[in-house]
Amino acid sequence: MKKAIILAIGNELVEGLIVDTNSKYLAQRLKEFGYYIVRTETLPDNFDIMVLRIKEAIKDADLIITSGGLGPTEDDLTREAVAHSIGRKLLKNEAIAQELINRAIKYYGKAPESVVKQAFVIENAEVIDNKVGTAPGQMLKYDGKIIILLPGPPVELIPMFESILEKLKTNDSLYTRRIKTIGIPEAVLMDEYKDILYSNSRITIATMASYERGVEVRFTGPIEIKDEIDYVVNTLLPKLGESVYALDDKEMHDVVYELLVKNNYTVSFAESCTGGLISSTFVDIPGVSSVFKGSVVAYSNEAKIEILGVSKETIEKFGAVSEECVIEMAQGAKKIFNSNFSVAVSGIAGPSGGSEKKPVGTVCIAVCSPNGINSATYNLRGDRQMIRKRSTLIAFDMLRRGIIKCQG
Amino acid sequence: MKKAIILAIGNELVEGLIVDTNSKYLAQRLKEFGYYIVRTETLPDNFDIMVLRIKEAIKDADLIITSGGLGPTEDDLTREAVAHSIGRKLLKNEAIAQELINRAIKYYGKAPESVVKQAFVIENAEVIDNKVGTAPGQMLKYDGKIIILLPGPPVELIPMFESILEKLKTNDSLYTRRIKTIGIPEAVLMDEYKDILYSNSRITIATMASYERGVEVRFTGPIEIKDEIDYVVNTLLPKLGESVYALDDKEMHDVVYELLVKNNYTVSFAESCTGGLISSTFVDIPGVSSVFKGSVVAYSNEAKIEILGVSKETIEKFGAVSEECVIEMAQGAKKIFNSNFSVAVSGIAGPSGGSEKKPVGTVCIAVCSPNGINSATYNLRGDRQMIRKRSTLIAFDMLRRGIIKCQG
Repeated sequence: MKKAIILAIGNELVEGLIVDTNSKYLAQRLKEFGYYIVRTETLPDNFDIMVLRIKEAIKDADLIITSGGLGPTEDDLTREAVAHSIGRKLLKNEAIAQELINRAIKYYGKAPESVVKQAFVIENAEVIDNKVGTAPGQMLKYDGKIIILLPGPPVELIPMFESILEKLKTNDSLYTRRIKTIGIPEAVLMDEYKDILYSNSRITIATMASYERGVEVRFTGPIEIKDEIDYVVNTLLPKLGESVYALDDKEMHDVVYELLVKNNYTVSFAESCTGGLISSTFVDIPGVSSVFKGSVVAYSNEAKIEILGVSKETIEKFGAVSEECVIEMAQGAKKIFNSNFSVAVSGIAGPSGGSEKKPVGTVCIAVCSPNGINSATYNLRGDRQMIRKRSTLIAFDMLRRGIIKCQG
Repeated sequence: MKKAIILAIGNELVEGLIVDTNSKYLAQRLKEFGYYIVRTETLPDNFDIMVLRIKEAIKDADLIITSGGLGPTEDDLTREAVAHSIGRKLLKNEAIAQELINRAIKYYGKAPESVVKQAFVIENAEVIDNKVGTAPGQMLKYDGKIIILLPGPPVELIPMFESILEKLKTNDSLYTRRIKTIGIPEAVLMDEYKDILYSNSRITIATMASYERGVEVRFTGPIEIKDEIDYVVNTLLPKLGESVYALDDKEMHDVVYELLVKNNYTVSFAESCTGGLISSTFVDIPGVSSVFKGSVVAYSNEAKIEILGVSKETIEKFGAVSEECVIEMAQGAKKIFNSNFSVAVSGIAGPSGGSEKKPVGTVCIAVCSPNGINSATYNLRGDRQMIRKRSTLIAFDMLRRGIIKCQG
């Protein structure tokens, strides 16, 4: 199996100012194309370190991809470091230089000298066109290895990488299945079903437990045992029942979307502590407008009462974080948006606002369906962000189970 | 300066299934405590690779932190790999084992054998208590270096790391300032102000341009030249004027929040293509309820008309993506939430829905303030997510400028 190493370059990465999402994307695509990622690295904008790591990467892998460090500023050193590592020259590409100058003049009225820095190409490298930003990418062969230089912004890197992906095909494609569950602890799942999970020694089993995505089990093996992998997955699925919320690349909200489309249902949301996170997660899906009517972020009691029609007495008697309140919020959303389903969430995301009776992490969720209303209270842990994300997952899960109940 | 390397372990990382956010967090904290991060790596759950990389890391750094691979399952190998790399034994800690068993029985009614795996501690390692999850961390000294093992879930890793951070203090603290701008291209900014930027050779200048956060300039140097760094920053700031939206750790929405609090203003949102992203970004801020009244995600024309009071004629004549429509949406939100300010966004996030006159990326934004209404149309590039994120940044920026104008 061909080995790949990804080097993400930039002080902003090793200083923890931004998260390296490029390596995740590149790793996922490379895996699909049959590469084994022996490691990914993030490196500072430090010429000596970069040269050292590029040389090591060339030693350890067949394919080396760098991201970042191709910009016009003085700390952009990837071109120089790769050229130095393999003992090749950087040559100015006049056509690219002229294009960069024209582009800068068009957009900003002037062309700083520095833009031309991006027109330097490593000897014998192929230029990868950048249709979004200014820095072109480069792809070259060295000592039987492939080295690819891509710019840092994901919006540029992704289409550029996709444009050359066909050239990276291997014969070692892998086959992976993923079962995503909610409601069964990782250790219990792995223990209870170990006979099925480990029934085929050629299949690699891995699990991933996350507070915002539940527990995922992955089955991986060479493409030629595809049927055996599917068999194990299909043996396990009925045992796990409704705890399985999605398979493979699907996310919880994708599954909810598909269930709504399939049954010709619509949905609306009434959010308090999640503050729009449920809606914005749902709107990530292109075409969601066919099932999504809208939502109200009723962050104040005033908004809960006046827009969603929650009764003042309910809030006074039970509090805004109560099943009584979320039931009325859900009913209100269903009514004003005229949707088949509605989901309401109200909780204490913290860090303040908790009490002994309702500590931080107390979250109430209600789902209105054509069949009636279902509500529940959860005691979630973690910080503000974690509580909001977990609430979003659970809200979608309650909606998912509600739709399944209605359709059969 | 002490060197640090972070090793994030897990197939889910090198297979691109999740993003490594732990390394970002660890890198940021370590930098503040005076460490130079020579690299971070993500590695597969592969014993041989892990041992090799741990040995290399011990060679190249003074502090090595691993995240992940401490769980109860068969692919959790970090304890074993570190022990093997430094030639030490793993010893079962009976107290931890009993606690793990008790905990499992309490939560799940039974204790799978595998939980005890997490009770094994490397010889002479100090145990780091895990108050959130089950896997304890470990910290040990080897050959003058410090090695720390932390679990993968951020909700566990962060408090555990914070609990030992004092022990990692060095004498080489760095001082960093960050200027965050919107509206000036990176190359223009770096060219126009290069005399100020590079006026002090002891200060390292770095820039980071991102579609969702604008252009950031960072000034870094040893803590003893703090005043010199502040001087350069303070010289540059007035030249950049209102293009500077935030300094240092502040984000755009933090600044908007502070401006609202300072002036005792409230705000509401009416979102279409952003689908709740503006609201949920804002609600990330604890205590936001004092200024945030709520929002309506009016994804359908129906909701725009019935809840926000946009006139049917406006939508028919100008379309839902028009300045006329967002002005009425903003007016509607301001009215129903009774807020001082309101912001409305409507656009075509794609991939479908574009036309020749209004291509994908066309986004209209309006801000209602006590002084009047301001609206604008933008032509954004990128995919659905990028367009929604950029729209959110611009919406907050228009609101920021609107509040500044109102306060005098």
